[in-house]
Amino acid sequence: MAESPRRAAGRRLLLPLLCLFFQGATAILFAVFVRYNHETDAALWHWGNHSNAANEFYFRYPSFQDVHVMIFVGFGFLMAFLQRYGFSSVGFTFFLAAFALQWSTLIQGFLHAFHGGHIHVGVESMINADFCAGAVLISFGAILGKTGPAQLLLMALLEVVLFGVNEFVLLSLLGVRDAGGSMTIHTFGAYFGLVLSRVLYRPRLEKSKHRQGSVYHSDLFAMIGTIFLWIFWPSFNSAPTSLGDGQHRTALNTYYSLTASTLSTFALSALVSRDGRLDMVHIQNAALAGGVVVGTSSEMMLTPFGALAAGFLAGTVSTLGYKFFTPILESKFKVQDTCGVHNLHGMPGILGALLGVLVAGLATHEAYGDGLENVFPLIAEGQRSATSQAMHQLFGLFVTLMFASVGGGLGGLLLKLPCLDYPSDSQCYEDQVYWEHEDTAQEPLRVEEPDTQA
Amino acid sequence: MAESPRRAAGRRLLLPLLCLFFQGATAILFAVFVRYNHETDAALWHWGNHSNAANEFYFRYPSFQDVHVMIFVGFGFLMAFLQRYGFSSVGFTFFLAAFALQWSTLIQGFLHAFHGGHIHVGVESMINADFCAGAVLISFGAILGKTGPAQLLLMALLEVVLFGVNEFVLLSLLGVRDAGGSMTIHTFGAYFGLVLSRVLYRPRLEKSKHRQGSVYHSDLFAMIGTIFLWIFWPSFNSAPTSLGDGQHRTALNTYYSLTASTLSTFALSALVSRDGRLDMVHIQNAALAGGVVVGTSSEMMLTPFGALAAGFLAGTVSTLGYKFFTPILESKFKVQDTCGVHNLHGMPGILGALLGVLVAGLATHEAYGDGLENVFPLIAEGQRSATSQAMHQLFGLFVTLMFASVGGGLGGLLLKLPCLDYPSDSQCYEDQVYWEHEDTAQEPLRVEEPDTQA
Amino acid sequence: MAESPRRAAGRRLLLPLLCLFFQGATAILFAVFVRYNHETDAALWHWGNHSNAANEFYFRYPSFQDVHVMIFVGFGFLMAFLQRYGFSSVGFTFFLAAFALQWSTLIQGFLHAFHGGHIHVGVESMINADFCAGAVLISFGAILGKTGPAQLLLMALLEVVLFGVNEFVLLSLLGVRDAGGSMTIHTFGAYFGLVLSRVLYRPRLEKSKHRQGSVYHSDLFAMIGTIFLWIFWPSFNSAPTSLGDGQHRTALNTYYSLTASTLSTFALSALVSRDGRLDMVHIQNAALAGGVVVGTSSEMMLTPFGALAAGFLAGTVSTLGYKFFTPILESKFKVQDTCGVHNLHGMPGILGALLGVLVAGLATHEAYGDGLENVFPLIAEGQRSATSQAMHQLFGLFVTLMFASVGGGLGGLLLKLPCLDYPSDSQCYEDQVYWEHEDTAQEPLRVEEPDTQA
Repeated sequence: MAESPRRAAGRRLLLPLLCLFFQGATAILFAVFVRYNHETDAALWHWGNHSNAANEFYFRYPSFQDVHVMIFVGFGFLMAFLQRYGFSSVGFTFFLAAFALQWSTLIQGFLHAFHGGHIHVGVESMINADFCAGAVLISFGAILGKTGPAQLLLMALLEVVLFGVNEFVLLSLLGVRDAGGSMTIHTFGAYFGLVLSRVLYRPRLEKSKHRQGSVYHSDLFAMIGTIFLWIFWPSFNSAPTSLGDGQHRTALNTYYSLTASTLSTFALSALVSRDGRLDMVHIQNAALAGGVVVGTSSEMMLTPFGALAAGFLAGTVSTLGYKFFTPILESKFKVQDTCGVHNLHGMPGILGALLGVLVAGLATHEAYGDGLENVFPLIAEGQRSATSQAMHQLFGLFVTLMFASVGGGLGGLLLKLPCLDYPSDSQCYEDQVYWEHEDTAQEPLRVEEPDTQA
Repeated sequence: MAESPRRAAGRRLLLPLLCLFFQGATAILFAVFVRYNHETDAALWHWGNHSNAANEFYFRYPSFQDVHVMIFVGFGFLMAFLQRYGFSSVGFTFFLAAFALQWSTLIQGFLHAFHGGHIHVGVESMINADFCAGAVLISFGAILGKTGPAQLLLMALLEVVLFGVNEFVLLSLLGVRDAGGSMTIHTFGAYFGLVLSRVLYRPRLEKSKHRQGSVYHSDLFAMIGTIFLWIFWPSFNSAPTSLGDGQHRTALNTYYSLTASTLSTFALSALVSRDGRLDMVHIQNAALAGGVVVGTSSEMMLTPFGALAAGFLAGTVSTLGYKFFTPILESKFKVQDTCGVHNLHGMPGILGALLGVLVAGLATHEAYGDGLENVFPLIAEGQRSATSQAMHQLFGLFVTLMFASVGGGLGGLLLKLPCLDYPSDSQCYEDQVYWEHEDTAQEPLRVEEPDTQA
Repeated sequence: MAESPRRAAGRRLLLPLLCLFFQGATAILFAVFVRYNHETDAALWHWGNHSNAANEFYFRYPSFQDVHVMIFVGFGFLMAFLQRYGFSSVGFTFFLAAFALQWSTLIQGFLHAFHGGHIHVGVESMINADFCAGAVLISFGAILGKTGPAQLLLMALLEVVLFGVNEFVLLSLLGVRDAGGSMTIHTFGAYFGLVLSRVLYRPRLEKSKHRQGSVYHSDLFAMIGTIFLWIFWPSFNSAPTSLGDGQHRTALNTYYSLTASTLSTFALSALVSRDGRLDMVHIQNAALAGGVVVGTSSEMMLTPFGALAAGFLAGTVSTLGYKFFTPILESKFKVQDTCGVHNLHGMPGILGALLGVLVAGLATHEAYGDGLENVFPLIAEGQRSATSQAMHQLFGLFVTLMFASVGGGLGGLLLKLPCLDYPSDSQCYEDQVYWEHEDTAQEPLRVEEPDTQA
């Protein structure tokens, strides 16, 4: 490949050095701050003389594992739809999420679980770290194919911090409820990525247009991601909710919502196409919007009907977004959204936040009984009315949009640092830039004139 | 593609309209009838002052998730073996199952869980709805590649109702035991699909012969389906059984049965081939017969040896079926069974029902102790002898075969409605009819003279 | 294919006859010896009047299912990286593991769970059998592509016995702790396979060189294996540990270790390559070394920092091994290690054993409190000092290496029996030898002169 020796040497060293430095730094911070919590420490657990069956592990670990599958298999393979970017989609997902899990354990730990100078970890911190990795991967989806791994690592470094702060403001300061993260994960991750993609706008990206689509088998790999995300979304939304009816109801609502978003996606996809045929992009993505849209409200008394209606709406909006809004987003707003995260996470995330406003505003003591304490503790304790909770939820959405936008902007500036390696316009969506592979059956990489991003 | 404008317009509108209508109808029925049950409702659960650890969620949700993987990943990818029908196999599985989950929640709810004018839902209704979706997908396997999505939706509409009625007759009226559904799911789904396929017989299907096989990577995608089905089958059979020893024993028996069906499938596949080589079709399918054959009896005191023997028999019968009976089924009985569901679900399902007759007939108070109440409540309460239970089990098989055959016949007539769009003989097993895809690496679709089904 | 009629007939009959014979033999042994244990037997469980929630099933079955996914999906697809050996990788994994589960239930049962003339089975025996299958599949990785299924079956027959004996010596006689099997599974499986591969050394294997690499999509299939192994490894290591804090801490430590091995693998892979690009072989394999390296110590009070440091080291050593040591292993030591199991299981396994020596040697009553009884019962009971436990751990490693080496040597002699069918040097890494497939898009098999192994 025709590139300058300086950039080649930079590529050779920058990524490993950043990895080693960040891994060293997190390891030192772990050594200083991170300790087993009450449920994972041999001495502490046995000191309490607990029944082993009461260990949080048995209530949350199966859900954690489902979430873990979603983050690594779901996101990774969903993004593998690109014909020449499967290694990067799956590989960089793997890489970014592995870093985000460590880094987020520290950030979330400092903000949420810092007691006596130490961060205490267990299955709940594992779930929360995976959630943060999810937000990072949503942002990755917006810029997929247009950035190098060192850039992505810096993006994760920044985004994890802002994710943690935003989550802290919402959950701890504002008393907002957002178990499945319609706001904290989906809205935040999507708009962070979209603003970042705006800053990194490439006017001549059509040079890589021939690699922006899928091939037959890459679409099937992407369906592996879609289906695992769809299946386990009930576990995602219910993983951090209160035990008992809380987890159970959240899973049930999410399950119904997803069935409805699937049907509306199939209906709309056929309806908006030229000849009634279905579009794999819609099925792979919009069918999942039902999970996003009940992220806030699925732990509430949404009712099964409410879940169906919400899912139906989300699938519809998301499919229409892919068809009509994504082109406008690029042509008018100069946002190149590779995976359409605006349609899958952005709009459904905002809808989910608003649905949370509505359902919180309708909360009554009759509907929740003594369970109100678990879902809306501030209402149960009389510190807030349902209307006040609803207003706080709405304010949480604005805070999230603000953090995401400012964060995405900062992220964009960070990723434009001249020392960072990035693919030229003609090298986008191309594994060969980052991966050694002697697969002669594939097209040779066309190298062209200097890129536009610099 | 050369097709009449009327049919093109019909295709364009029929599927979306049916989807929207059915989704609207189920949503209204959900609003009127479906309510959280005792374990998912915040007020009801907390009113009872239960320990959260006692919530059914913790006993059944991990199994539910395994079943969910089987339905969407297992069935979807297993059917993706066809070289040009992967999108439809995975996509229509997704679509059909999403609809069946909603519709079956209503039908099974009316029949099994209708109290005080309401259907009460929770993890058990989720498992049961997934089971019903499994039966629909088995039938889909028989007609795979030969029907359009609107036809499939109508098939599911009918089949879910008949599945629910048959299940109600067996479990509630006849007191039949069938936890893993050898009868209610596998036998029912298989013969429903086979009779339906008979009605839709296409004498000139050889026009699509060039697409009926697999290619190298489509067979690997299918193995994803096979392996996930195989792995999680112990969870499938044990998901609805009684807690404690019931779930534990069911999972264990299924696990052993599957190992034996795998070995007998490898043995027989090599034995019946021309040159001792293995056939992917056998491995992908017949190795799973061990899960089907213990569907009825795995909750019983089958013994580990009994499980091995049953699995061995099922793998043998299934492999021989693929080799010798499937061709006869088409040539003599005019049943075109795309996935060979007769071999994987039909014959092993009947064998499983008969094994249930045998094991039920051998039930004694010594063998089951106080556990008899959970497995055979009517025997434990003295209302039936073991022999009488066995006779009821046998009668249940006949009822199932009757419902399946009549239902499949009705389904065939329904799917031949002239307003329904279906692929011509030369368009079978071809994604391009239903999916937009610009994959120039693939063969162009050959369009031929009018089809024979009309 | 040009092969002698005798060998063709031998191939045709040997595999089925071995399968049927072994399946018959294990079935008879099951009939005589295997019984439901206390938790799976209807009468025994109910006799005790237990709470159903106390059944071991609910504490271990979700972990078991994760392990099951690792064995069948993880190992199977990880080995599917070879361009022309995907059917065999996934299929023979399926076949070998199904046999090993049965056979190991018997062997481990005779050694560990033989009471009153019977082997008692339940979820713990299921987990242990899957662990043994894991060791067999590690050995399979060393000789992947160079042996026939009948040879593999005999290898499993021998290896399962030696695995059971080695495990018995370590865990029962020496009182060694090795929950996740750094020694019993990884070190044993790797060196068994490597010595076996040495005995089967093929000096002219370059005849199949053109099939030893991957193609684009085969690498993506392999990533399915990698990611599922990575995700579920916390369940693997924690599946057999003591309940409560034991399982919880083990899962947490493994999770951290894997994140660090992923980062160090990406760093080192880029660092050692010619031009800073990443190598799929490293990502697919070395990133998993973090799970192997804490196999012994993750149940101990390793600390989160310790887990990160261990994972980092393992990823580094493993990547360097792939880059620099694998070529030497073949050229100097005449060990052809197809999957590089020396790098993923061998060296990280030994490192894991040594880490276990260190962490055991540092065990104190303060650090473990009353939990010491669960992790180091012999220290808690005062029968051993921490230093003595450490020495026993170290001795366990030597015993394992000895059993593995002698076993691999015996295995090699067994597999060279003249009656066994094996691929010629030019037929290695080729599915077509064992699988019927009419996939004309693939290269024809080049048949060459007589092979060198005889």
